[in-house]
Amino acid sequence: MTTSQKFTFDNLYSERSEPAPVRKVEHAEYDFAVAYPAPETLPMYGLIQALQAKVDSDADQVAREMAYYPHVLGSPELREYTSEKLKKDRDIDVDADGIVLTAGSGESIALLIQAITDPGDVVLTEQFVYGGTLNQLRKFKADVVGAPIDDQGLIPEALEDTIKRLTAEGRKPKWLYTIPEHQNPTGSTLPESRRREILEICHRYGMPVMEDECYVDLRFDGETQPAFRALDDSGIVMYAASFSKLIAPGLRMGYFVASKDLTERALSFKHGSGPNQFAAYAITGFLRENLDKHRNTFNPGLKTKSEAMQRGLEDHFSSSGATWSKPQGGCYAWLTMPEGKNISAIRDEVFAGGVGYLAGVNFAPNGDGQNMARLCFAFESPEKNYDGIALLAQLFRKHGVM
Amino acid sequence: MTTSQKFTFDNLYSERSEPAPVRKVEHAEYDFAVAYPAPETLPMYGLIQALQAKVDSDADQVAREMAYYPHVLGSPELREYTSEKLKKDRDIDVDADGIVLTAGSGESIALLIQAITDPGDVVLTEQFVYGGTLNQLRKFKADVVGAPIDDQGLIPEALEDTIKRLTAEGRKPKWLYTIPEHQNPTGSTLPESRRREILEICHRYGMPVMEDECYVDLRFDGETQPAFRALDDSGIVMYAASFSKLIAPGLRMGYFVASKDLTERALSFKHGSGPNQFAAYAITGFLRENLDKHRNTFNPGLKTKSEAMQRGLEDHFSSSGATWSKPQGGCYAWLTMPEGKNISAIRDEVFAGGVGYLAGVNFAPNGDGQNMARLCFAFESPEKNYDGIALLAQLFRKHGVM
Repeated sequence: MTTSQKFTFDNLYSERSEPAPVRKVEHAEYDFAVAYPAPETLPMYGLIQALQAKVDSDADQVAREMAYYPHVLGSPELREYTSEKLKKDRDIDVDADGIVLTAGSGESIALLIQAITDPGDVVLTEQFVYGGTLNQLRKFKADVVGAPIDDQGLIPEALEDTIKRLTAEGRKPKWLYTIPEHQNPTGSTLPESRRREILEICHRYGMPVMEDECYVDLRFDGETQPAFRALDDSGIVMYAASFSKLIAPGLRMGYFVASKDLTERALSFKHGSGPNQFAAYAITGFLRENLDKHRNTFNPGLKTKSEAMQRGLEDHFSSSGATWSKPQGGCYAWLTMPEGKNISAIRDEVFAGGVGYLAGVNFAPNGDGQNMARLCFAFESPEKNYDGIALLAQLFRKHGVM
Repeated sequence: MTTSQKFTFDNLYSERSEPAPVRKVEHAEYDFAVAYPAPETLPMYGLIQALQAKVDSDADQVAREMAYYPHVLGSPELREYTSEKLKKDRDIDVDADGIVLTAGSGESIALLIQAITDPGDVVLTEQFVYGGTLNQLRKFKADVVGAPIDDQGLIPEALEDTIKRLTAEGRKPKWLYTIPEHQNPTGSTLPESRRREILEICHRYGMPVMEDECYVDLRFDGETQPAFRALDDSGIVMYAASFSKLIAPGLRMGYFVASKDLTERALSFKHGSGPNQFAAYAITGFLRENLDKHRNTFNPGLKTKSEAMQRGLEDHFSSSGATWSKPQGGCYAWLTMPEGKNISAIRDEVFAGGVGYLAGVNFAPNGDGQNMARLCFAFESPEKNYDGIALLAQLFRKHGVM
C-alpha cells in the first residue's frame, strides 16, 4: 500500500486534549534553574550493589515479582521500608498497606488532585508554589489561589482571612496544598506552632491539607518540624513524599499516604500497575544499608553549596536592594529584587549570558513574581555557585534591573 | 493535638472519582490466569550487568541523566535502540524523536485513548479484547463495540458491516483497537491480506487504527505478518508496544508511535516526566547485546509449553465438544466450551480447586464469553501445563460444565 495522502486527526481529537509540544531542555553554564543536587552525589554503584545483593539472596522471589505486573500499591518491601522510615524519621504511624508508591511524587499529587477536585474548585496554596503542582491543578481546572507567606511560610491569620474573603465571594476553598519543609520555591520551613494553628483552621473550615515533604531528608541547618501528618491522624492530612531528591529523580519513585477511602478514590485515576519493581529493589536495599551514611555526606555538601551561594549574594547583591532567603536545607534560595525590577522578562537573555534560573512568575497562581527568581544551589559546585551569582549580578546590571 | 474525631472526605470527592478497592492478588496452584512467561526466563543478571557496564563506561552521563528528571519522551538511548529495532524487526521507519517511552504500554494506550476519545465515542475492538484496554476505554466512557472475529482475528467484511450498521444507528465508530500478532486473549495472528483490507476500510471511513504489538517478539511458529504501521505510514496507524513480555513487566517500559500532532495531544495527558531512566539503561544495554540470543532461547521454551498445554487439551477436552486456539506465539490459548456451558460463573470454585484462568466475560465489550476462558501457557512448566489441564477437565466435570 502506498500512502501519499497524509491522514489527519484534526476532527478526531478529544475535547479535553490540547497540544503539549515537546520542549528542548537546555542548561545554562551556571545552572540554577534545575531541581536536583549534583550528579556526583548520586549513588549509582550503591544502587546497583543493592540490586545485585537482592538478586543474589532472593533470586526466586525477584524473578516472581518481576514477572508479575507490580502490585497497584507498588513493591511490598519498599512500602515496608517506607513505613519504618516514616515512623522513625517523622513519627508518622502508617503500615505498609497504607502507603501507595507512585512514579515520583508527581503521580501521587496528580492522583490525589483528581480524587478531590472538580473543575472550578478553589484550591489554596502558598503564594508561590511548586510549578509541577500548579500545572497539575490548572490541568484539572482548579481555581488556584495563593495565600500570603513570609520567610517562615504560610501565615495562619492571613490564611484564615483568605478563606473568609473567598467564602464571602462564593469561592469557598476546598483544600490546601503546602510544602512545609524547605518550601519550593522559597526555601522556608513552617514552624510547628503555625502547623498546629493551620490544622485548627483546616478542621474549622472542613478543609483537608495536602502536605508535600519532598525535601524533608535534605536538612543541613535548624530543626526539622513535626509533619502535619504526625500532628494529626484524623485523616484530614494527605501526605506525599519522594525518593527523587534523596537518591535520584531518574528512579521515578514517590509515594503518598491518605485515608483508606480517599486512597481508593485516588487509585481510580491510576493507569495500570504500580511503579517499577526494578528501581524499588535498588532503593530498598540501598537505603536499608546506607540512609544515615548517605544523608551525613549528602547534606553537609548541600550546606557548603548553599553557603557559597549566600556569600555570592552578599558580595554582589547587598547594595542592590534585593533580598533572599537563607535556606536550612532543600535545594533553593529565593531571590527578590526590588518592586518593579522585572527579572522574569529578561530570563532568556540572562540564560544566553550563562546563568539559568526559574522566574518567579512560574510559581505564582496569580502570575505575580516578576521581580523574583528561584535559584537552585544544590546542583553546581560551591565555586560555580559563587561565580554564577557574580555573573548574574553583572547580567542584571547589563539588562538594567540592577 | 489529639484528634479523636475522624475527618471524612465524603462530600469532597470529585464527581469523576469512584472507589477502586485494592484487590488481593492470589495465584492458583496451576496458574493459567497470569499474563507473563515464567520467572526462570527473566534475565535479572543480564539486566544488572548491562546497568553496571553503562555506569562503568559512561559514569558522568549516567549521573547527569539520573539527576535530571527524565525527558518527557523517555531515555534518548532507549528510543534510539527502539527506532533501530522497529526498522530491523518490523520495517517501521520512525526516528528516536518519534517514539514516546511510557510506564508500560498501558500508559501509551491510556494517553492515546484520552487524546482521541470523548465520552460516548464509539470505539471498535476485536470481539474479545485485552482487558486492560477494555477497562481504560470504559474509564474514559467510550462506547466499546466488538467486531466479529474468527481464528485469524478480525474479518474485514464483518468489520465493514459493523461500521455500516453502527453508522445507520447514529453510532459511527471513531477508531479501531486491535492486537494483530498473538492476540490477547485469543492468540490469533491477522494475515497480511486482511490487514491491507482493514486499512482500506479505515481510510474509507476516516477511522484510525491503534495497533498493539505487545506480543510480537514472542513468535515460535508461523510467519510474523507485516505491521499495520509498516503497511501504512499515512498517520492513520497508532502503534503501541512493550518490553514487558520480552523482558519483564516489573520494568514498566512500553512505548508508542503516532503522528507528531497526535503525540503532542497525547502528551497533554501525561503526569510528569518520562519513565524511569534506571530501567532504561538496563533494557538498552541488555537488548543491544542479547536480543537475538534471548529470543532464541525464550521462544523455543514457550513453544514447548504451548505444545504441552495443547496435548493436555487434546487428551482431556477432545470429547467434550470444546474447541481451542493453536497459538503460534504469545502467551495464550483460548478455550471455548459448548454454548450454554457457563465457565465464567464457576471460575472461583475452579480456582479453589487449583486451576486459575481468566473467564471470557472479562474480555467481551458486550459481556459475552460465558463459555470461554483465556489460558496462559507461558508461565507454568510444560509438566504443569499438561497436568493443570487434566485437573481443569476434572473440575469442569465436577461443576457440571463438562
